[in-house]
Amino acid sequence: MSAIGLTVAELAGAVEERSGGVLRAQVHGDAGRLIQGVASLEAAGPTDVAFLANPRYQAAARRSAAAALVLSAAQREAVFPAGRDAGTVLESDQPYAWFAFASQLLYPQPTPAPYRDPTASIDPGADVDASARIDAHAVVERGATIGARAWIGAGAFVGAEARIGSDTRLHAGAVVHARCRIGERGIVHSAAVIGADGFGFAPFQGGWVKIPQVGCVLVGDDVEIGAGTTIDRGTMGDTIVEDGVKIDNQVQIAHNCRIGAQTAIAGCVGIAGSATIGRRCQLAGAAMIAGHLSIPDGTVIGAGTLVSRSIREPGFYTGFFPMMSNRDWERNAALLRHLGDLRDRIRRLEGRHDNSNPRGEP
Amino acid sequence: MSAIGLTVAELAGAVEERSGGVLRAQVHGDAGRLIQGVASLEAAGPTDVAFLANPRYQAAARRSAAAALVLSAAQREAVFPAGRDAGTVLESDQPYAWFAFASQLLYPQPTPAPYRDPTASIDPGADVDASARIDAHAVVERGATIGARAWIGAGAFVGAEARIGSDTRLHAGAVVHARCRIGERGIVHSAAVIGADGFGFAPFQGGWVKIPQVGCVLVGDDVEIGAGTTIDRGTMGDTIVEDGVKIDNQVQIAHNCRIGAQTAIAGCVGIAGSATIGRRCQLAGAAMIAGHLSIPDGTVIGAGTLVSRSIREPGFYTGFFPMMSNRDWERNAALLRHLGDLRDRIRRLEGRHDNSNPRGEP
Amino acid sequence: MSAIGLTVAELAGAVEERSGGVLRAQVHGDAGRLIQGVASLEAAGPTDVAFLANPRYQAAARRSAAAALVLSAAQREAVFPAGRDAGTVLESDQPYAWFAFASQLLYPQPTPAPYRDPTASIDPGADVDASARIDAHAVVERGATIGARAWIGAGAFVGAEARIGSDTRLHAGAVVHARCRIGERGIVHSAAVIGADGFGFAPFQGGWVKIPQVGCVLVGDDVEIGAGTTIDRGTMGDTIVEDGVKIDNQVQIAHNCRIGAQTAIAGCVGIAGSATIGRRCQLAGAAMIAGHLSIPDGTVIGAGTLVSRSIREPGFYTGFFPMMSNRDWERNAALLRHLGDLRDRIRRLEGRHDNSNPRGEP
Repeated sequence: MSAIGLTVAELAGAVEERSGGVLRAQVHGDAGRLIQGVASLEAAGPTDVAFLANPRYQAAARRSAAAALVLSAAQREAVFPAGRDAGTVLESDQPYAWFAFASQLLYPQPTPAPYRDPTASIDPGADVDASARIDAHAVVERGATIGARAWIGAGAFVGAEARIGSDTRLHAGAVVHARCRIGERGIVHSAAVIGADGFGFAPFQGGWVKIPQVGCVLVGDDVEIGAGTTIDRGTMGDTIVEDGVKIDNQVQIAHNCRIGAQTAIAGCVGIAGSATIGRRCQLAGAAMIAGHLSIPDGTVIGAGTLVSRSIREPGFYTGFFPMMSNRDWERNAALLRHLGDLRDRIRRLEGRHDNSNPRGEP
Repeated sequence: MSAIGLTVAELAGAVEERSGGVLRAQVHGDAGRLIQGVASLEAAGPTDVAFLANPRYQAAARRSAAAALVLSAAQREAVFPAGRDAGTVLESDQPYAWFAFASQLLYPQPTPAPYRDPTASIDPGADVDASARIDAHAVVERGATIGARAWIGAGAFVGAEARIGSDTRLHAGAVVHARCRIGERGIVHSAAVIGADGFGFAPFQGGWVKIPQVGCVLVGDDVEIGAGTTIDRGTMGDTIVEDGVKIDNQVQIAHNCRIGAQTAIAGCVGIAGSATIGRRCQLAGAAMIAGHLSIPDGTVIGAGTLVSRSIREPGFYTGFFPMMSNRDWERNAALLRHLGDLRDRIRRLEGRHDNSNPRGEP
Repeated sequence: MSAIGLTVAELAGAVEERSGGVLRAQVHGDAGRLIQGVASLEAAGPTDVAFLANPRYQAAARRSAAAALVLSAAQREAVFPAGRDAGTVLESDQPYAWFAFASQLLYPQPTPAPYRDPTASIDPGADVDASARIDAHAVVERGATIGARAWIGAGAFVGAEARIGSDTRLHAGAVVHARCRIGERGIVHSAAVIGADGFGFAPFQGGWVKIPQVGCVLVGDDVEIGAGTTIDRGTMGDTIVEDGVKIDNQVQIAHNCRIGAQTAIAGCVGIAGSATIGRRCQLAGAAMIAGHLSIPDGTVIGAGTLVSRSIREPGFYTGFFPMMSNRDWERNAALLRHLGDLRDRIRRLEGRHDNSNPRGEP
């Protein structure tokens, strides 16, 4: 992935412009140094820009050979109280966002050239924008719509009457089933499946009767969907992923969920049917959300936490068994089955003393 | 997905027929109303049938604009003690199953027309029924058998000597490896992989020696397999999924498991090697089953529960750490490491009192 | 999968040779018996070799009709104190490894014949060894390198400038993205995705700014990667999987992880970004590893265990909530929220006795 080259001053100007004027960096040192890439503090060379991802990395920042470091004012004072001799510092009140925009500028995502691979299977009744790129063995079925500058990767599948928005990219092998919609500027990674049937069966005579899944999946703009992630279509009505949602790999989102705008969902999360997740939530890795519940805007769910009922108040919620040596676990897990007994024994002991449990605890 | 139109009376007759005479609904109100689709209570319009998925939704049922509601006798009395003015009620002793059959009738799954896409790669030595449909870029290898009216979706893969039963559908990108078998009326969703190698290695000289995985996967009739689900072939002998099993997305079933008939497995479940799951079990989302154990018929395993040893008695088993505010979790999880100490302190206190622990509890 | 035929003596000689002279079995009984396959103790017939996978299976070993059994000296004494009448015993100090090599010899993996399917899409600028096999609808992009005897399965994808080592097999539908490398003698199963974007976004104005993922995935030699497993490319710098690592199905390995040589990772494991896993570790099913931490060589993590901070000492670590009947769980889980209260009540009781908590426990 080849990067382009800019001076520190040019890069600062370009980040300011791309951020809508929000991110203005103050240059300490040589504004004319050439920047050609981003790197970690340790790996950065004389044409790289780096940033301080973690306060613990201050020593690495001091040692870094990076041409330029993006730091907050407080970081700059802490790391270089006497100034940085070895290179330039870019001071920003949002160094992480500044770095992200800078990286986008240094590694511009190629705009695909209009292209239809001769091996792609495109139904004559599909509406494919002339500026779109369709790679080898991709399939676009009847009535599907592919927007301007969209890029359908090798072997990707777009079902009948599905719609892929402008500037959206389906990576190799991504699947978007019939009638589902992906908005603009989206990214769907390989082996993601959008619009498989929801898991719905009625019990009958000792077996199961399948309930046809007649809804769709509607995905908003600026949504990223990770590799191997599955989002099922609604049973009746649609599964909805609002604008700006970011979804990592191997996430399962069941039928009729609604994921609020700007929510971020880390890898291996599962969300059962008809759950409603608010906006700007963060679900950490392997969190599991039961069905038919709601989580309010701005909630953070910790890794490995099972949410089994609705949450009323936004906050940071956690629930996983802490890791121990296996020997300790054996002892503690066995006692966990007897918490009620321990409680009862405490009660009996308290019964021998007045006021031992004045607050009437459980 | 366009639905067909039936009167309430026609629909009731058709459900009765399709259910083998088991489901007979009593019509209260206008039996001549036109039904064209199913919908949720809230979304239902004047040509929809709806049902009461949850007792909490009684108010929504009263407000519903649905042409007809399917209710049990008890639900009808509770929701419409004075009768339903606004529309028809279908009274059934199994309203959910009735609704499922009605939905199947209103949204009939298309029988695929016989078809072989010119881009499909079908080995001349494969036995493909003339009534089957093979979509673009699908691959059917030497010696494979594709049954009557089977539908092999775009880019799906059927390996050498594999067998796909009549009326079974492989969705786009599904993979069935060599010598594996899928029964009749099955559904295999996109990115599901049937018959990858089991995970078997012998330790040797600090590394691992691969054990060839020479068994197959045998899947019965009427089985549904979700998107991204993986079922590995047996190491020696086969991995077996019996008739009527329903498997959701991103489920992992390891080598040499046996899944009993009619068992339902929700999303993100993992089942390790050589586990035997009984018939009519239900494994809720993200349950994890260790290897070389057995679970009896009719067992229910709760969400997020790890089953680490065989279960002797059917029942409802659970085990996940309850969610808390992160602050409470920090406090309680730390104490969890010291349950043994708490127990010892209770013991010491009891030692000062005769008869404090008369039952000799742990 | 047809096996070849060897006498017991020939097989013993071949295993010795393939193991570099390490595995020498002593033959008790007829060394001339014909062996044509491997099987479990129960299923083994008169031309099969079997082994004792578990000490509990001694009775099955005695009943087994296998032509030959591979046993350690101790197993042989325990199972056949008076010798085995019905067949041969191969005595080995590493019976499991011996069995693995024997199985490889009896079920030799076919070396693919050089082949390029006419439907494969191979860029003229790709460097495909003349001895490689490229199956139907596979895609090899510009600048990619395919090594000697490598086998690219149907519909598999090899991105621009990616490298697939000699004797490596990509199964149907596997995806290796641009610039990633797989070493020699590797296996990548179906629906695995190597080199999708890492999950990296900077918060900005209530939403997220994507950080370009400009690193690669570098996979060593003799690595197996399971079906549906995803390994993301590095954000800056690379994600590294060292030689001999074995990865099961549906494992998620995030950007910039390093997995040490010979480590084995079971199904459904998730590893968050920038985690460093040592060599010869074993991560059991559904273990979850948080980001930016390290685990030392030789560590074993139990099933369903969340590792939330670095581990300093190798050992066997566990942490999952033990399964109970749902009724017991309800009672115990509720008390878990009140461990602090129970502890406080014990403290108050102790306050009434001198020396009740002499060690100052929590």
